[in-house]
Parts: sequence; structure tokens; C-alpha cells
Amino acid sequence: MKISIAQLNPTIGDIAGNAQQILQAAHQAVEQGSRLLLTPELSLSGYPPRDLLMQPAFVAEMQDTLQHLAQAFPAGLAVLVGAAVGNDQSLQQGGKPLFNSTALVQDGQVQQWFHKRLLPTYDVFDDHRYFEPGSESRYFTLDGVRIGVTICEDLWNDAAFWGKRNYAVDPLAELAAQPIDLIVNLSGSPYSVNKQALREAMLQQATQTYGQPILYANQVGGNDDLIFDGNSVGFDRRGQLVCRAKSFETDLMTVEFDPEQRDLQPGLVVEPPDSTEAEIWQALVLGVRDYVRKCGFSKVVLGLSGGIDSALVAAIATAAIGRDRVLGVLMPSPYSSDHSVRDALALAENLGIQTQTLPIGGLMQAYDQTFADLFADTEFGLAEENIQSRIRGTLLMGISNKFGHLLLSTGNKSEMAVGYCTLYGDMNGGLAAIADVPKTRVYSICRWLNAHCQVQSLGLIELDPAVTELIPAPILIKPPSAELKPGQVDQDSLPPYDILDDVLCQFVTQHRAPAEIVAAGHDPATVDRVIKLVTQSEFKRKQAPPGLKITDRAFGTGWRMPIACRWLPATDRTASSTLLSIPRPVSSSAAPAVT
Amino acid sequence: MKISIAQLNPTIGDIAGNAQQILQAAHQAVEQGSRLLLTPELSLSGYPPRDLLMQPAFVAEMQDTLQHLAQAFPAGLAVLVGAAVGNDQSLQQGGKPLFNSTALVQDGQVQQWFHKRLLPTYDVFDDHRYFEPGSESRYFTLDGVRIGVTICEDLWNDAAFWGKRNYAVDPLAELAAQPIDLIVNLSGSPYSVNKQALREAMLQQATQTYGQPILYANQVGGNDDLIFDGNSVGFDRRGQLVCRAKSFETDLMTVEFDPEQRDLQPGLVVEPPDSTEAEIWQALVLGVRDYVRKCGFSKVVLGLSGGIDSALVAAIATAAIGRDRVLGVLMPSPYSSDHSVRDALALAENLGIQTQTLPIGGLMQAYDQTFADLFADTEFGLAEENIQSRIRGTLLMGISNKFGHLLLSTGNKSEMAVGYCTLYGDMNGGLAAIADVPKTRVYSICRWLNAHCQVQSLGLIELDPAVTELIPAPILIKPPSAELKPGQVDQDSLPPYDILDDVLCQFVTQHRAPAEIVAAGHDPATVDRVIKLVTQSEFKRKQAPPGLKITDRAFGTGWRMPIACRWLPATDRTASSTLLSIPRPVSSSAAPAVT
Repeated sequence: MKISIAQLNPTIGDIAGNAQQILQAAHQAVEQGSRLLLTPELSLSGYPPRDLLMQPAFVAEMQDTLQHLAQAFPAGLAVLVGAAVGNDQSLQQGGKPLFNSTALVQDGQVQQWFHKRLLPTYDVFDDHRYFEPGSESRYFTLDGVRIGVTICEDLWNDAAFWGKRNYAVDPLAELAAQPIDLIVNLSGSPYSVNKQALREAMLQQATQTYGQPILYANQVGGNDDLIFDGNSVGFDRRGQLVCRAKSFETDLMTVEFDPEQRDLQPGLVVEPPDSTEAEIWQALVLGVRDYVRKCGFSKVVLGLSGGIDSALVAAIATAAIGRDRVLGVLMPSPYSSDHSVRDALALAENLGIQTQTLPIGGLMQAYDQTFADLFADTEFGLAEENIQSRIRGTLLMGISNKFGHLLLSTGNKSEMAVGYCTLYGDMNGGLAAIADVPKTRVYSICRWLNAHCQVQSLGLIELDPAVTELIPAPILIKPPSAELKPGQVDQDSLPPYDILDDVLCQFVTQHRAPAEIVAAGHDPATVDRVIKLVTQSEFKRKQAPPGLKITDRAFGTGWRMPIACRWLPATDRTASSTLLSIPRPVSSSAAPAVT
Repeated sequence: MKISIAQLNPTIGDIAGNAQQILQAAHQAVEQGSRLLLTPELSLSGYPPRDLLMQPAFVAEMQDTLQHLAQAFPAGLAVLVGAAVGNDQSLQQGGKPLFNSTALVQDGQVQQWFHKRLLPTYDVFDDHRYFEPGSESRYFTLDGVRIGVTICEDLWNDAAFWGKRNYAVDPLAELAAQPIDLIVNLSGSPYSVNKQALREAMLQQATQTYGQPILYANQVGGNDDLIFDGNSVGFDRRGQLVCRAKSFETDLMTVEFDPEQRDLQPGLVVEPPDSTEAEIWQALVLGVRDYVRKCGFSKVVLGLSGGIDSALVAAIATAAIGRDRVLGVLMPSPYSSDHSVRDALALAENLGIQTQTLPIGGLMQAYDQTFADLFADTEFGLAEENIQSRIRGTLLMGISNKFGHLLLSTGNKSEMAVGYCTLYGDMNGGLAAIADVPKTRVYSICRWLNAHCQVQSLGLIELDPAVTELIPAPILIKPPSAELKPGQVDQDSLPPYDILDDVLCQFVTQHRAPAEIVAAGHDPATVDRVIKLVTQSEFKRKQAPPGLKITDRAFGTGWRMPIACRWLPATDRTASSTLLSIPRPVSSSAAPAVT
């Protein structure tokens, strides 16, 4: 029996368009001789639909469309379609009004529903905000083959694999205890670095533990900050990988299930990107391409400073949508070095993108004049530096508003973490392409680009065969600088980036206490300073554009910190530092005043 | 037996400072002869601590501090302290690593833990992200009085009151089935308009249903976007209100429980604000005051346009922190009317705040010159209008950066909803004081201010007795205008505000389908246009500052919408409009391409 996986790239909320994609995949599946088609989690709405789920009209349209789809599917094909469906018991028994479900559609109608049981409510996930967990794991029978159905997180609770239980129930174990021949999983699992290796290790262990083959269908494409990598796979009952779909591309993968052997047969295995840098590059290119497309833009604009961050974002944008649709804007100030303009132009030439140059000296003078009286007795400082950045941000938004281009911001994760960026200035943009890429990783990706630019396809970048370094060498070599005052370099204000990025990774991603980070070999003063900077810049991140997520912990929908807050973990914090002074009662009558 | 409620205003994360507040309240409670002190939900960390709960060092410090507090409390007093505590069974049994709990502290140690059972995961709440629900409802005995403990949401599942079940279990019913004499509830329940009336109706019904008295202790104060209104109350077993603490202020309220009658005795009942406008005014004043204080600012700055929004925000700021700490900045352009400057100055004079005037004509010219070539063949439009707004935003941020003032943004909810505001321009600010106040409500609050300015205390506003109208009449009378081009008024671009606000309320707050809004009496074209504007301006709101929440559905932490999205409910949408066209298979071999 042939089974196809439609590794689809839905647009959130575009129910009709997504249904059309599913229908097209169904016809392709039939042409390939398939009996069953798998689609990803919530394939009708796209994942995650977020608060659209709170509009009854949205859920109703999903159900209507599902009925139409059922009529439209080619005969002889069973299709698993992801959709939200009402929880009829909600009013009587309590619980959320919806299930996150998969419908088995066959013979012109929905035959059976399967509800997601494990609802992730961590990091970027809010499943429990909308959905009631399903109460049982079930299978269906197709041509005598008994197929157990799980949805995304349902697979992620193998206590042996994780060394702990994440949820009280384990749908996989419950399914495996039933008379089944195959387990399918419909996922909307977002990308992070090395996630696919983790998934495959987990699936391998699960197939070996239960002696059941698993087919895993994942969504692909960018949805705001989240990038879905596809990488749908199949494992046979002995834990062998039998098929893998493309990374970061839509795909239709067909695989054979042999009812005699009750197992999946070896099929096509697409090799994933061969390095972390290649993987991140492809993720970011897809993330930018889809945000541009799904928001309805045709062109993008970005500031080209001559630095490495904007160079990488320009390359990503060009790879994503092509050189004719990318505009680079140079905005030199009197503090800009000659090489800034030269390096930016060299990069633009390599990429073949158009540039505009708008010097900001005149505007700086106009602000100085406006502030002349008010700032008369003050010294040049942060306020003046920020004004330069905000002039540039205003110029870029002027171009964006005038010509309808999407502005891409170019800040990296290290800057965003410590607030080394200007709110309403260089942070401006509709999408922050590398906001989750630490500075050291920005360098390694650029070095990878240069090493591979003539041997590997880089999306829509059309490189002159004479160019051997996509990112001009001076950009990689010179010390990073915001160039907001003469002679400024980042390392005047920040620890060296290799140290900064390691401290940030331990604090932000691994939630380590400052004392642990010091114990791991870092200078206590540096650790304290970095953590203080992270804490104090929360207000900036709260107003940042969506940033493409590539790590396990990005600043964005999965980072929910208070701003008006006084928690500042310090390396020297001990229990004694929290000792209370025992007060005399201040007054015997009055309530404490509002202070 | 006397029982005190400490209606505290914690700073999120300031565990030592919050403990000090609890300790001080404990001494006051003892002076008032109390045997038991109630503190609000998570009183040690403040509610909501959000992702601080993911730092093990944060939870550890809460536990350490709790031990010190136990030693420090005055003898003879039992205290219920809110704290997160580890879920020991989490690794073995699955489930979240923490409980949202209350500790009964007595005789120098924690005697008992009570875990929150109903975890809200809707609107602004993310309890399920961090916490495992408690599995049982319990009581403790003090001087023979059996006291059942519930935490916030635990009370909010009375199927008879709501007409439906919100959760599968009802802790109140389970407690009432046990031999208890009194129920206490420790809450962190945020304010919204008329919320207290709802709470009291619910508490009244609960006390009548179960014949048990209830003491309800709520947090007070502003935490980022959330305002907690206090209003702690007690109801006796017959459903009579016996005591109410202050609204929007810290308080220590002591009430008598009579063991003979097994009931609460009548105590002090503070009257709440006597109108919706008075209530919102007090909420916003507290929200601004606390954000300024808890973020560590001493002064605020805002733009004074001469319009009603900035007038109201200036009044709120002055009431919150005093006239010496508020700076109003006038930034007239060549398009500004004479009355704009005149009205703004008159308002500032009424409030007694300082002003600065920074004309922006020169900067507008400087941008025009910079863009002269690039914009040569285009007409004056949105880009140029936005530049004026961004010049003002940059000037205000320049002052904020130079002098360390907090910038307050002045946009109202109607504008934020339809995107009638400039990202990186008038949206700039650390806090959006009236972002959840619809324009029609802005007017009604200003009219209320004028009617009451000489008869009611308005926070720290010190009004000249000769002033009869705090908000100068011309500001209330003239048609609203952004004044970004000659003769512009808001109603050129938007429906009349009374219509707009009603459509917005139905769509945003009540999740009504467009057809229902039309059925309620609105013009279909207007409804479609408004909904389209709301949907299209999601990208702006994603980058907005925190806005003080006063309604059941604010744009902010409780509004989680996708941006790259194609759901646009329309009044003429019917099931047939989603009919699929059945495609011919495009190709018999290739997978669908990434498009």
C-alpha cells in the first residue's frame, strides 16, 4: 500500500488556499498510486493559527471547507486533514471549546476524528490556550492495515528517551498496546538548530521500543517568527530510516507499506544540509521569502552599513526573492569610515542589488539645531548616537512607505540580548531576519557562504563566476562598529563576542544561574554585566519586530518577560543577601500608603 | 478571631522587597489583634512573574526568602504567603515543574502548602505554561476554625453562575463538601471595567450556594500592561457583603470571624469609584504611577499636540506623579493650526506642567531635501505624513535619552485597532497609557474630569480654584485631527468614532462575525472596512509599547494574532465563497514547488 506525505507550506488563515494545496497534493498522490495521504498538523488553517481560533467564524469556515474538500478528493484516496473541531462537551463538562484534530476523509465524508492529546504550552507554544486534550489514542483500518494516529507533541513523551516524563500520559505507548500496524504523526514542528537530528533519534528509539513503523509528516515554511523545516521522515519497525523528504521545501513523498511484512519499505532519502551553517542559511532564506510573500510584499529594503550583519541580511534577502527585488540603502554620516561605503557597495555589486545613498549629515545638523537650546549644557552622548540611528530608521521607513517595500532589520541576537541597538532606529523593520543568530554565528555563516559560494546553489543569488568571496573580505576582517562616534568599535562597550555569546547561551537558553556560569569559567564581573544588560533591555525587545527563530530560545513569542521588574540574579547572590531586616511597625493605625 | 487581608502592591521579581512588605503587614496585623494574615496570589514574586519562573535561581530565592520570613514573622500570627514551589513528582509522573501555591506559615515554619487547581490559560494568562494544577482542595485549622484555601481562578468555575463549566473540577464545591467554616481566596485578578461588580456577584452567589463565608484577598498595583485593582472583599454565609478594601490602593483590612456563629462579622466597607469614568481614571493613574516607579524613572515626557488624547495622558501623568515630574513637548509643523499650540499650552497651564516647544518645520525640510531625488516623481502622501510623526517621535526619544525621562505614548484604542497611528512615530514610548481606551471613552473621561475637577481629588493634580475645566473646552469641541496635512481631520479616513468604536467592540472583544455586526445595525461596507483595517495593522501593534489594559480584550499580552496571515472575515462571506475549484493535476512527477 502506497502512502504519500504532503509536506505543505500553508499560509495562516488562508483556508481556501490551503485546501487547494491539499487537493492538489491529493491528485498527485493518486497519480503516484497512493491509497492514503498525510497532511501536517492543522493543515487547513496552517500552524499556528493563534487567536484566529477565537473567532467562531474562522472555525466554522474550516469545517465548511473540510466538507467541500471531502467531496472534491479523488475517489479511492483516504486523506488525513488537520483542522480545529468543536468540543461538544465543553459547556457541560468544562474544558476548552476546541480540539486540535485530524480528520480521516474518505468516500466523500469525514469518517473519523483524532484529537491531539499532548498540548505543548512552553516556549512558543500555546496549545492549551485554545484546545482541550483528546482523551484517547485511536487507529483506523485501511485495506486491512491498522493505522494509529498521533499529532505532533503526542510523540514527544518517551520517558526513556528524555530521561523524564513530560506529560502524565504517553499516547505512543497507548497506541502500541493496541493491534496496529503503523503509526502516523501529523506535525507542525518548528525548526531549531539540529532539531532534525533530535527528531530522528527520538523516532528511531520509538520504532525500536515498540516495534512499529512510524511515518512523520511535518509542515514546511515560514510563519512570522517560526520556520518549519519539513524533513518529513519514515522509520521502519527496526528503527531504520526508510525515507526523508526535502528540508525547507515543499515536497510530496510517497512510500510503500508492505502489509505482509507489516512494515515500511525503503524509499527515497533526501540528504539534509551538510553543516549547521548550511541549515541555518536555508532556514533564514525560507523565513524571509515566506514572510515577504505571505504578507503580500514584492520588494524589500534594508540599510547597508558596510558591516557584517547587513551584509548577511542582504545576501539572505537576495537568495530569498532575487536581486531585482532587494534595495540596499547606504546612509553615511560624518562618522562613517570610507571603507563602510566601499564595503557596502562591493557587497551590493556581488549580489547584483540596487543601492541608494542618502547621507545623513544634513539631518544630523537639523536635529542639532532643533535641540540646540534644550541640550545646550550637555555633552555628546547616547542621545546623539541614537538620533543618527533614528534618522536612518526614518529614512528607511520613508522608502518603505513611499514604495511599499518591506523593511528588513539587520540586528543580531547578541545585540538584541544586551540592548546594543536603537529602538525606533536600527531596530526598525517588518521582520528581523537574523535576530536569533548570535554574532559569532553571523561570522561563521558568512565564512561558510564565502567558502561555498561557487560550489553550492545559494537560492536566487546569481553570482558572477569571477567572484570568489560573496561577502567582501574587509567586512569579515574589520572590527565590528556602529560608527556612531569617531573611532567607536563594539568592543568598547561589550565583552568580546565569543565570550558574550557563550554567557548569553548559558543564561538565556540554558537558564543557568550566574554562579554556574562563573563556575563554567567566566569572569564574574562580565557575567553580572551581561545579565544586567539583558535584564535592562527588555523594554526594547518588547517592541522589536518578529525575528526568525533558529535556536531553542529566541526573543519573541517564546520569551515572556516582565519589564517593570526588579529581579537581577547576580554571581554573588546567596541566601543571606535576601535576609530580611525586621521592621518596627511603622504606624499602629494606617494602612501602608501607595508608594 | 480577627483576620487581616494585606492588599499588597508587589514589584515583580523583587522578592526581598515584597517579603519586606509582607512582614510589615504582619506586624500591622498583629497590632490590630489578628490571628491570621492573607496575602495575594504569588505575593512573594508578584503576579504575574512570567518567564522569571523558568530560572531555577528565581524559584530557589523565593523558597529561601520564605524560610527567612517564617522566622521573622511575629509570634502568634499565621500567614498565608503566595509562592511558586517545586512539583517533586514532575520528572516521574510528567507535568510542569512548579505549583502556583500558598504556604501556611506559622510558628517559624511552613506548615502546609495549598496548590492552585484551576490554571487560567486565556486572555493575558499563561498559568499552564509554568504550573501543574493541584489535585485536591484542602483546609487548615486555626483555633478550631477550619479554613479552606483557594487561589484566584479556583473560584471562577461556578457552572450555575456562568451558565457553563469552565473547568472539569470545581474546587469550591469540593471544599464546601468538607467540614469547613470559612473559605479564603488569594488572588492576582487584574482590573477591567466593571470587573469588581462581576466578582462580587459571583462571590455572593457562591456564599449563598454553599452557605460558607468567603474572604477574597486581591493584589493591587500596575505590572506592565496589567492593573490590579485591589477591592478585596468579604461575604458572609448569607451572601451579604461585610467588608471591602480600597480600590486601586494598598490597604490592610481586618475583619472579625465569629466562631460561634461560624460567620464573618460586618466590618468596614469602602465605597468603590462611583462611575465607570472614575474607575478607569483611577486605574490609569495607578498604572502609570507604578510603571514609572517600578521601572525606576523619576520623570515622564510626552508630546502635547493640542488634541484630546495627549491632554488626557498629560492629566493622568500629572495625577500619577505630580506636575514637577511631567514635561510636555509641543512640536508644531507648518500644518499645525494656531489653536493646537494655544490649546496645548492652556492644558499645560491648568496642570502646572513644564513645556518645551520644538518646531519641526526645519527637520521636515531636511528630510525633503534628503529624499528630493528619490521621491522626485511622487506626490505628497502617507510617507511624508509619517515622516512628520517620526520626527516628533525622534525628538521625544532624544529628550528621553538625554534626560532619562520615560516617554508616554498617547494613542487610544480606536487608533491602535485600525492602525491610524505611525509606527516609530506617535506610537513611540515606554508605556501606552490609554492604548486600551476607545476614543469615545477618552471623551467621556475628559468630560467627567471637567465635571469633577473641583469636587473630587484627582491624584496629585493641584488645580487652581479658578479653573473650572481641567481639559480646555476647545480640545473637547474641535474635530479630532492628526494635522499631518492641511485641513486634515480623522473623519476623512475613519468612520465616525461612535460607529467605529461599536464595530470594534463587537469584533475585537466579542468575537462577532461580520454578518452578525451587520445584523446588529451597521453598514456592511463600514464593517468590512474596519475589519480589514484591524487585520492589516497587526504588524504595528506587534511593535507597540505595553498598553494599560482596562477592557476584557486589550491589544497586548492577551492578543496573539499572526501577522503573515490571510484570514479576512467579510460580511458577505458564505460557505459558497470557500468552494474549491477542483484542479487538474499540474504535473505527474514533480512535487509542488516552493512558491
